Amino acid sequence: MRSNYEVVIIGGGIIGSSIAYYLAKAQMDVALLDGGAIGDKTTKAAAGMLGAHSECEDDASIFFPFARSSQQAYRELKDELYEISQIDIGYREGGILKLAFDESEKQKLHYLLQQPSVQWLDGHEVKKLETAVADHIVGAAYIKDDVNVIPTQTCQAFAKGAQVFGASIFENTHVYGVQKLNDSYFVKTTKGTIEAKRVVVATGVYSNGLLQDIGVSEQLTPVKGESIVVQTNQPILQHTLFYEKSYIVPRNNGKLVIGATMIEDEWSESISLQSMEDLINTAKAMIPSSSEWKIDGFTSGLRPATFDGQPFIGRHPEDEGIFIACGHFRNGILLAPATAELIRDLMLEKEENKEWLDAFRIDRRQLTKV
Amino acid sequence: MRSNYEVVIIGGGIIGSSIAYYLAKAQMDVALLDGGAIGDKTTKAAAGMLGAHSECEDDASIFFPFARSSQQAYRELKDELYEISQIDIGYREGGILKLAFDESEKQKLHYLLQQPSVQWLDGHEVKKLETAVADHIVGAAYIKDDVNVIPTQTCQAFAKGAQVFGASIFENTHVYGVQKLNDSYFVKTTKGTIEAKRVVVATGVYSNGLLQDIGVSEQLTPVKGESIVVQTNQPILQHTLFYEKSYIVPRNNGKLVIGATMIEDEWSESISLQSMEDLINTAKAMIPSSSEWKIDGFTSGLRPATFDGQPFIGRHPEDEGIFIACGHFRNGILLAPATAELIRDLMLEKEENKEWLDAFRIDRRQLTKV
Amino acid sequence: MRSNYEVVIIGGGIIGSSIAYYLAKAQMDVALLDGGAIGDKTTKAAAGMLGAHSECEDDASIFFPFARSSQQAYRELKDELYEISQIDIGYREGGILKLAFDESEKQKLHYLLQQPSVQWLDGHEVKKLETAVADHIVGAAYIKDDVNVIPTQTCQAFAKGAQVFGASIFENTHVYGVQKLNDSYFVKTTKGTIEAKRVVVATGVYSNGLLQDIGVSEQLTPVKGESIVVQTNQPILQHTLFYEKSYIVPRNNGKLVIGATMIEDEWSESISLQSMEDLINTAKAMIPSSSEWKIDGFTSGLRPATFDGQPFIGRHPEDEGIFIACGHFRNGILLAPATAELIRDLMLEKEENKEWLDAFRIDRRQLTKV
Amino acid sequence: MRSNYEVVIIGGGIIGSSIAYYLAKAQMDVALLDGGAIGDKTTKAAAGMLGAHSECEDDASIFFPFARSSQQAYRELKDELYEISQIDIGYREGGILKLAFDESEKQKLHYLLQQPSVQWLDGHEVKKLETAVADHIVGAAYIKDDVNVIPTQTCQAFAKGAQVFGASIFENTHVYGVQKLNDSYFVKTTKGTIEAKRVVVATGVYSNGLLQDIGVSEQLTPVKGESIVVQTNQPILQHTLFYEKSYIVPRNNGKLVIGATMIEDEWSESISLQSMEDLINTAKAMIPSSSEWKIDGFTSGLRPATFDGQPFIGRHPEDEGIFIACGHFRNGILLAPATAELIRDLMLEKEENKEWLDAFRIDRRQLTKV
Ligand SMILES: Cc1cc2nc3c(=O)[nH]c(=O)nc-3n(C[C@H](O)[C@H](O)[C@H](O)COP(=O)(O)OP(=O)(O)OC[C@H]3O[C@@H](n4cnc5c(N)ncnc54)[C@H](O)[C@@H]3O)c2cc1C
Ligand SMILES: Cc1cc2nc3c(=O)[nH]c(=O)nc-3n(C[C@H](O)[C@H](O)[C@H](O)COP(=O)(O)OP(=O)(O)OC[C@H]3O[C@@H](n4cnc5c(N)ncnc54)[C@H](O)[C@@H]3O)c2cc1C
Ligand SMILES: Cc1cc2nc3c(=O)[nH]c(=O)nc-3n(C[C@H](O)[C@H](O)[C@H](O)COP(=O)(O)OP(=O)(O)OC[C@H]3O[C@@H](n4cnc5c(N)ncnc54)[C@H](O)[C@@H]3O)c2cc1C
Ligand SMILES: Cc1cc2nc3c(=O)[nH]c(=O)nc-3n(C[C@H](O)[C@H](O)[C@H](O)COP(=O)(O)OP(=O)(O)OC[C@H]3O[C@@H](n4cnc5c(N)ncnc54)[C@H](O)[C@@H]3O)c2cc1C
Repeated sequence: MRSNYEVVIIGGGIIGSSIAYYLAKAQMDVALLDGGAIGDKTTKAAAGMLGAHSECEDDASIFFPFARSSQQAYRELKDELYEISQIDIGYREGGILKLAFDESEKQKLHYLLQQPSVQWLDGHEVKKLETAVADHIVGAAYIKDDVNVIPTQTCQAFAKGAQVFGASIFENTHVYGVQKLNDSYFVKTTKGTIEAKRVVVATGVYSNGLLQDIGVSEQLTPVKGESIVVQTNQPILQHTLFYEKSYIVPRNNGKLVIGATMIEDEWSESISLQSMEDLINTAKAMIPSSSEWKIDGFTSGLRPATFDGQPFIGRHPEDEGIFIACGHFRNGILLAPATAELIRDLMLEKEENKEWLDAFRIDRRQLTKV
Repeated sequence: MRSNYEVVIIGGGIIGSSIAYYLAKAQMDVALLDGGAIGDKTTKAAAGMLGAHSECEDDASIFFPFARSSQQAYRELKDELYEISQIDIGYREGGILKLAFDESEKQKLHYLLQQPSVQWLDGHEVKKLETAVADHIVGAAYIKDDVNVIPTQTCQAFAKGAQVFGASIFENTHVYGVQKLNDSYFVKTTKGTIEAKRVVVATGVYSNGLLQDIGVSEQLTPVKGESIVVQTNQPILQHTLFYEKSYIVPRNNGKLVIGATMIEDEWSESISLQSMEDLINTAKAMIPSSSEWKIDGFTSGLRPATFDGQPFIGRHPEDEGIFIACGHFRNGILLAPATAELIRDLMLEKEENKEWLDAFRIDRRQLTKV
Repeated sequence: MRSNYEVVIIGGGIIGSSIAYYLAKAQMDVALLDGGAIGDKTTKAAAGMLGAHSECEDDASIFFPFARSSQQAYRELKDELYEISQIDIGYREGGILKLAFDESEKQKLHYLLQQPSVQWLDGHEVKKLETAVADHIVGAAYIKDDVNVIPTQTCQAFAKGAQVFGASIFENTHVYGVQKLNDSYFVKTTKGTIEAKRVVVATGVYSNGLLQDIGVSEQLTPVKGESIVVQTNQPILQHTLFYEKSYIVPRNNGKLVIGATMIEDEWSESISLQSMEDLINTAKAMIPSSSEWKIDGFTSGLRPATFDGQPFIGRHPEDEGIFIACGHFRNGILLAPATAELIRDLMLEKEENKEWLDAFRIDRRQLTKV
Repeated sequence: MRSNYEVVIIGGGIIGSSIAYYLAKAQMDVALLDGGAIGDKTTKAAAGMLGAHSECEDDASIFFPFARSSQQAYRELKDELYEISQIDIGYREGGILKLAFDESEKQKLHYLLQQPSVQWLDGHEVKKLETAVADHIVGAAYIKDDVNVIPTQTCQAFAKGAQVFGASIFENTHVYGVQKLNDSYFVKTTKGTIEAKRVVVATGVYSNGLLQDIGVSEQLTPVKGESIVVQTNQPILQHTLFYEKSYIVPRNNGKLVIGATMIEDEWSESISLQSMEDLINTAKAMIPSSSEWKIDGFTSGLRPATFDGQPFIGRHPEDEGIFIACGHFRNGILLAPATAELIRDLMLEKEENKEWLDAFRIDRRQLTKV
C-alpha cells in the first residue's frame, strides 16, 4: 500500500465503486478502501431495478430527471463495463408492471402516465402479458424503460474497471477517522494512515461515525430490506411486477426475487418470521400460484435513509477537499452513475449540474430552515 | 469391499443404522450399505422427539407399549453410544407440553391423562413454565417422559458404533436389486455384487423399487415435512410445545425447530412459500412473539407412510432370509431401538415379542381382508 | 400429470433437456421426467467449456466434427434460448490457452495447430495476454473458438424453452422401469405409470439400472470431478487456461473455476482433502499468485464414462421405440445440441448423419468384436 | 432500551459474554452490547481447546496458573450453564496428544512433562491410542486435562445465562465512542446514547478505535486463523492431536476440525488457497489417511494479539470506571472464566489476584520500559 494518493474513496459499495471508476477513467490517482469486501453490504441486498419511473413519487421534481439520466448512462455502461472488466452486469430489459387491483390504486398510478415511455394496460392486457397475475387485476402502468441489473456484479464491474484504469483497491481496510493537516488529509485505517489531497465519503448507511468525525451533523438511519429468492417450475415472469412497495423481479439466471420489507431503524440484517409472512402475502396478492414457489435463499440489507429521502452528494460545506456521496436509500444502484458523474465533475471543476448539486447538498436542512 | 457377509443391511438411515448396531453388538458379520451418506435422507429432517405419548393417537393399542419400550432403551443408549462412538446423541430432557387453547382441544387431550407420567396443567401453570405462550392458553398435557435427541448425530452414533463392533459401512453404494440363489442372496450394487446369508431392507420411503423386486406388493407413500430452524434473543424455551400436528422444539445448541408440514404424496424436498406461511402461523398461535424470531435455515424430508400408519417390521412372508424394516412414518427416531431389537431377536432366534411382530407384519393387509 | 404422451424423456440433465427442447420445438408431445431437479446432477458440476478443439485427442476422428457442429449450434442458441426462456446461458467468448511449460508439452499440442482457428503463441505473447501466468511458460495453443457457457443456466434454458414450446416437465419423478406392451411403453415412476409411444433414456451416469432393465448390457462408470470456485482481487483472467487435464475458467460474474479432478469409479460427490491439494497445485503451476485467491465454494459431479470414451446416442438395437443418449463423459455441455439434433432426426425420420450414428451406437463393442 | 445501566459491556464475544455472566450473577445491573450478533466474530472461529498445558510456552510463568484456574472453572460451569441457559457447551474430555516425529521435537516437549497431569507416551503407545497416526511417530506428550468445548455454544450459554440473571442484551448495537461527564460514562451507539457508571471494553481485535478514543495507546494486531471442518468414514479420533502450531480436534457431533493458520496482520476473514494447502499438509503429516477426509466447511477468524502475547485485563490506568478485557490471542475461550472473575473482583472490590492483574495491565509496556 502506497501511503499517498491523489484521491482516497472510503467505501466500496455501488456508490464508492462507481466513483472510483469515473475518477480512474478520468486519469486521477485513486485508492478505494473498504472495511470488508467490495459490494458486500447494502449493495448486495438490492434487487437491481433501475426504477427511474417506478420509484418516482407523485411530486418528485428533482429525483426524476436525475434518475433518468443515470438510467440512461447504464445503456452504454453495460457494454463498456463488460469490455473493460470482463464482468457482466446482468442488464435485463422487460420493464416493470405497476399493478392496480382496484380503482383507487389505479388513480394512484395516474401521475406516471404523464411520462411518454409509460403506458396504461387494462386487466385483460396485463393477463395477456403475465398470465399468472391474480384474476381481479384492474390494470397496470407499464414502464418499458425501467430495466434491471445484478447489483453485486455491477458493483464489481465498476471496481475491477477502476482497477484496470489504474485505481488501487484495498479490502478489509476499515477507516477510523480523517484528519486535516495543511492541505492534506490523513485517512486513518486498520492498515495504517494514508495521505490524500481529496477524500470521498461513500460509506452508505455506515457513515454516521465518519460524518461526526468530519464535523457534519446529518445522520443516516437504516431501513432494513429483506427479500426471498425463489425458484419455480412455472414459466418465468417476463416483467418485474410491482405492487405497493413490493415487487417480484425475474433474474437472468431463472430465479425470482420477492422484495422487500421496509423495517425502519433496524441495524440487524437478520430475517424475521414476520417479514417472511408479509413477503409471501404480497407475492400471493400479485400471483396466487406463487404459494407453490420453492425457497432458494434470502437477502437482507440496510437502506441508507436521509431526513428527506434524497441522497447527500457534493462537497463538504466547509472543507473543499472532502466529498460526500451517501444516503441513496432505495435507489443507489440506479443513481450510481449520475452520482459518480457529479463527483467527478466537481473534482475536475468541469461544468456541473448546479440544480442537482443544490438539491443534494448535505447542509440543505439548515439552509431551508432559514 | 469383501464380496461376502453374513448380513447385508440396505439403507443407512436411523433404522438401518440401529439394526447394524444391534447386530454387530451381537457379534454378527454385518455390512451396511447406503446409496448416499449415512443419515442423510429422511432421518436428517426429523425433529428428534421421542414422543411415545405425544404421538400416540387416542386408541393406539399397539403403538404405545412398543414406542414406550423404545423410548426407555434410549436412556441407556445415550451413554453407551457416546462411549463407543464418541458421538453425543444430544439427549435432552424437559418434556412436551401439548397445548389446548379451547375446551374442545382440551377434551381431545383427555386420553393422554390416563398415563401415569402425564399431568394436566391449567393455563396459569403453563404460563409459569413458559411465559411466552399465548395468553388465552387454556391448559396443557405435560408429558415429562417425551424427551428428544439430535437425529443425525444419533444415526451416526449407531453407525460408528456398529463399525467399532466390527461392521463394515459402505456409503454411495446404491442397491439395484436382490437375487436369491440356493441359500444365498446376491445384492447388486453400483460397486458390484455382494453375497449374503441374510438381507435387511431398511430403505425408508425409498423402498418401493426393492419391495417390488423381492415380490412384496405393499408400497410406501411420502408425506413431506418441512421445518424452519430459528434463533431468538428471547430466553429459550425449556419444553417442546406441541399444538395440532405442529411443534416447537428447543435444541441443545440454543436453536429452535418449528415443524412440520404434512404434504401428502410429494417426492420433492423443496420448501414452498405456502408451507413457510403455515409454519409461521402455527408458531404465532403458540407464541405470539415468535414473529420476531430470526430464520437460521430449513430442513425437509419425506416421512415413509404405510397404508395404516404402522411400520413394516419382520421377515419376508415367503422368504426366510429377507428381513424388512421400513415405514416408520412420523416416529422412526423414536422406534429405532425397539425395531432393531425385534430384527435382532428374529435373526438370532431369541424369544421375540410375537404381538408386536404380528402387528407389524408386511402382509397384514391381506390377512385382515380374509 | 397426463397418463399418456407421445415421447417420454427420462432424465433432465443437459442431455435430456436439450432433447426436450429440440423435440418440443419440432412440435412433438413431450414429457420430461427427472428424479430430482432439472440440471441438478452432473450437469451442475460442469465448467461449461465448449471445448471442441481442446478436448479433442490427437487422433480423434469422429469427435471433432461432431463437437464442432455442436459448438457452432450454440452461436444461434444463445440468443434463441434467451428470447424464448428468458434465461441467459452465460455465453462468454475469450477462448482457451492450452499452456506448455517445456518442449515436450509443446510437442503434445502440435496436432491442435492443424486447425485453422488455432494459433501458436510463444511465451512472450502468452504473458502479454495473461500477465499472471508463470514466468517459465514456453508457449500456448490459442483456441479462439472454444468459448464457454454456464451449465445450470443453459440446462434450465433448454427445459423452460421446451415448456414454452408445450413440453411438460415433472421433477422429483424417479423412473423404476420401462415395460413394453403392444406398441406402447409403460414408464413406471414414483408418481404412477405413464404411457408413451417413444422413450428416451438420458439419465447420464445413473443409467445402469435402466439399461439393464431394457436389456442393454453396456454399463457406465463414474469419473468424479471436483472443482474449486474462487474470487480474487487481482485483475481477472480474460481466457480459460488449460494445463494437463486441468483448467481455470473465468466466469461472467467475476469468479473463477479451478477444475477438475478425475477420480475413477467413485460414486460419491464429496470433496476430499487430497483433491483440494491437487487442484491448488495445478493452479499454482499455471498462475503462481493463485495461492492468494480466496475460496468461494466447491462443486463436484460424476462424469458418465463409457468403455471407449464416446457417448451412446441412437436407437435401442432391438427396440424401435427406445432411444438412448448418455455417456457424454467430459463433454456433455458441448455435445448437447448435436446430440439432440441426432435424436430428433431419428425420431422424425429426417435424413440423419449416418457416420455419427454408427460411431455412437450402443452395441458398437459387440460389432467391433466380430 | 433503557438509557441507564450500572455497567455497560461493549463486545459480546466469549470475553464480554462471560463478564456479563459473572457480573449479572453477582447481581449487578448489566447491559451487554454487540455491534453484530453474540459470538459471531473471532469466538466463532475458535477450535475450543482448553489448552492450559498445550498452549503454555516453555517459560510461561504467569500464563500457566491463570489458564489452569480458568480451565478448572469450566468443570463446574459446564453443568451450571446448561441448567441456567439450557444450552450445552459441548464439554468433551479425551485430552491432547502433542506429537513428536523426531528426537528434536521430542526434546521440545520436555518442559511439559514437569506437570503432574502430563505423561510421556512412546510411539507404540500412541499408535495404540490412535491407530491412524503416521507410523514414524516417536512419541507424544499426553495431556489429559486439556479438554475442549464448542465456542459458539459456550459464548451463547454465557450470554443467555446473563440474561436469565437479569442482564439486558443488545445485538446490532455498534459503539462509536465513550465520553465521561462527571461520574458517568456516555456510550454512543448506533441506537442512541447509554449512560453507565462503569464501562467494560471487551471488543477483541476490534478494540483499536475505542482504545484510542479512551486515551490508551496500546493497539491490537490481528493474526488470522483458518480451519477446515471435515467428515470421515474412518473411526473417529478420541484425542485432539497437536503438532507444531496445528491440530486436529474431534467434535461431539462426529466432525473434525483441522486448524489453524497463523497469518499475521491480516484483517480479512477469507480462506486462501495457500492456507488450505498448508492445513492439508499438516493433517497428512499427523494422519496420512486424512487425504481421504471429506470437506464439510471452513471457519476463519482474527486472533487479537498484543505486543507480548498476553491479554490486557484490568482497570484503565487513569480512569477508575473503565475496565478493559481484550487481547486474548490464541486462548480467549480457555481464559474467559478467569478473566471474568478478575473483572468482577475488581468491580466488587473483592480481594483480587494482584499478581495476575499486574501481569495483564494495559500499561505494562511503559512500566517495563522505565
Ligand atoms: C432490499 C433492498 C432492495 C433494494 N433495491 C434496489 C433497487 O432495486 N434499485 C436500486 O437502485 N437500489 C436498491 N436498493 C438500494 C441500494 O441497495 C442502496 O441505495 C445502495 O446499495 C447504497 O450503496 P452504498 O455504496 O451507498 O452503500 P453500501 O453498499 O452499504 O456500501 C458502503 C460500503 O462502505 C463500507 N464502509 C462502511 N464504513 C466504512 C469505514 N469506516 N471504512 C471503510 N469502509 C467502510 C462498507 O463495508 C460498504 O461496503 C435496495 C436496497 C435494499 C436493502
Ligand atoms: C419433518 C419431519 C419430522 C420428524 N420428526 C420426528 C420426530 O420428532 N421423532 C421421530 O421419531 N421421527 C420423526 N420423523 C420421522 C423419521 O424421520 C423417520 O421415520 C425416519 O427417519 C425413517 O428412517 P429410515 O431409516 O427408515 O429412512 P431414511 O432416513 O430415509 O433412510 C433410508 C436410507 O436408505 C438409503 N437408500 C434408499 N434406497 C436405497 C438403495 N436402493 N440402495 C442403498 N441405499 C438406499 C437412503 O439413502 C437413506 O439413507 C420426522 C420426519 C420428518 C420428515
Ligand atoms: C467437474 C466436471 C467438469 C465438466 N466440465 C465440462 C465442460 O467444461 N464442458 C462439457 O461439455 N462438459 C463438461 N463436463 C461433462 C458434463 O457435465 C456431462 O457430460 C453432462 O453433464 C452429462 O449430462 P447428462 O444430462 O447426461 O447427465 P446428468 O446431468 O447427470 O443428468 C441426468 C439426469 O437424469 C436424472 N435421472 C437419473 N436417473 C433417473 C431415473 N431413474 N429417473 C428419473 N430421472 C433420473 C438425474 O436426476 C439427472 O438430473 C464436466 C463434468 C464434470 C463432473
Ligand atoms: C482459528 C482460531 C482458533 C482458536 N482456537 C482457540 C482455542 O482452541 N482455544 C481458545 O481458548 N481460544 C482459541 N482461539 C482464540 C479465541 O477465539 C479468541 O481469543 C477469543 O474468541 C477472543 O474473544 P473476544 O470476546 O475477545 O473477541 P470476539 O469474539 O471477536 O468478540 C468481540 C465482539 O465485540 C464486538 N465489537 C467489536 N467492536 C465493537 C463496537 N465498536 N461496538 C460494539 N461491539 C463491538 C464484535 O462484534 C464481537 O462480537 C482461536 C482463535 C482462532 C482465530
